[in-house]
Amino acid sequence: MSEPIEYYFDFLSPYGYLGGLGIEEIAARHNRAVDWRVMLLGISVIKVMGLKPLPETPLKGPYLREDVPRFFRLLGVPYNPPGGGQMAPLPAARSFTWLKGRDPDLAKRFAQAVGRAHWCEGRDMSTPAAVAEIGATLDIDPAELTAAIETDDVKDALKRHVQHSIDKGVFGAPTFILDGELFWGADRLYQVDRWLETGGW
Amino acid sequence: MSEPIEYYFDFLSPYGYLGGLGIEEIAARHNRAVDWRVMLLGISVIKVMGLKPLPETPLKGPYLREDVPRFFRLLGVPYNPPGGGQMAPLPAARSFTWLKGRDPDLAKRFAQAVGRAHWCEGRDMSTPAAVAEIGATLDIDPAELTAAIETDDVKDALKRHVQHSIDKGVFGAPTFILDGELFWGADRLYQVDRWLETGGW
Repeated sequence: MSEPIEYYFDFLSPYGYLGGLGIEEIAARHNRAVDWRVMLLGISVIKVMGLKPLPETPLKGPYLREDVPRFFRLLGVPYNPPGGGQMAPLPAARSFTWLKGRDPDLAKRFAQAVGRAHWCEGRDMSTPAAVAEIGATLDIDPAELTAAIETDDVKDALKRHVQHSIDKGVFGAPTFILDGELFWGADRLYQVDRWLETGGW
Repeated sequence: MSEPIEYYFDFLSPYGYLGGLGIEEIAARHNRAVDWRVMLLGISVIKVMGLKPLPETPLKGPYLREDVPRFFRLLGVPYNPPGGGQMAPLPAARSFTWLKGRDPDLAKRFAQAVGRAHWCEGRDMSTPAAVAEIGATLDIDPAELTAAIETDDVKDALKRHVQHSIDKGVFGAPTFILDGELFWGADRLYQVDRWLETGGW
């Protein structure tokens, strides 16, 4: 098996969630592992690129409100986020960071469960209590999780992860890196698949 | 045959050029016509959305410099733009606008030839003289073209086209509208194809 495919996501991005579903399916077919890596669009898009949040961007905001549900429908994934679909990603991102340092596979399953709860089941994942509840279904102690994500160690580790994503040139979610090639967008999964199938072009 | 598919493009966008190649191929298979509609990213992205030009956007600029040639290679389209690939689109956009008012099919063939010259053949299409030379190969009188694009009639018509694109919610190039659905991006052609095949989802 070659190097794992790097999959960068932000919990607040519905496209990122779809990307996580798609890349696992594609990677399994090509006998590749997936390394889940958290990033924060609030840093890459807002601070580094100097752009506005997508939902507040004229023309693009209204487009997203049509395109996101249509993309979920195309893939047969239930689309049922709480409220307007917004999410405060820090509790989930810090929890993921803490878990990844202990058990990367558990961290992935946690991220998948948080994404499903938020985007498919209408459960707002913006708070420590909400993500701790998801953690509990994976035998993660809720008190331990909520304490861990308040530590400077975990906060600093997340900052390093985010800086790493920017150093790699990642700006949007999802982004996939394989064989040194960076692909941005859930709509590029077909190119990732083609790359793995052909060895590149 | 149903309503034509609307295809919005800006001459300065290499993704837009690829979108024009792809949508013609897909539309032909589904027995649909394509209505070529010019827009200006300088108005939609810069003025209305308040964003920076993509090539100057941190992180995204470097990504584009890798992704655009890779996308051309994937489709087997030669990628050989002049200089850094930048283009001043007004002469071509005004010429297209003038031609479309007289003969939409000729206007489309003109746009295809200008795009090929710029993106595939390394010929800078930023000047009236350059686009007039392309026009001449389609039996369009160069003197008539260069005079026409200086008239207020043609300039105003282009402004109306651009405003129309914004009124329709179009912000990026290429954008496809079919059956009232808006799809943004050359990487969404597979969804356009699927929509035509299935009648939507």
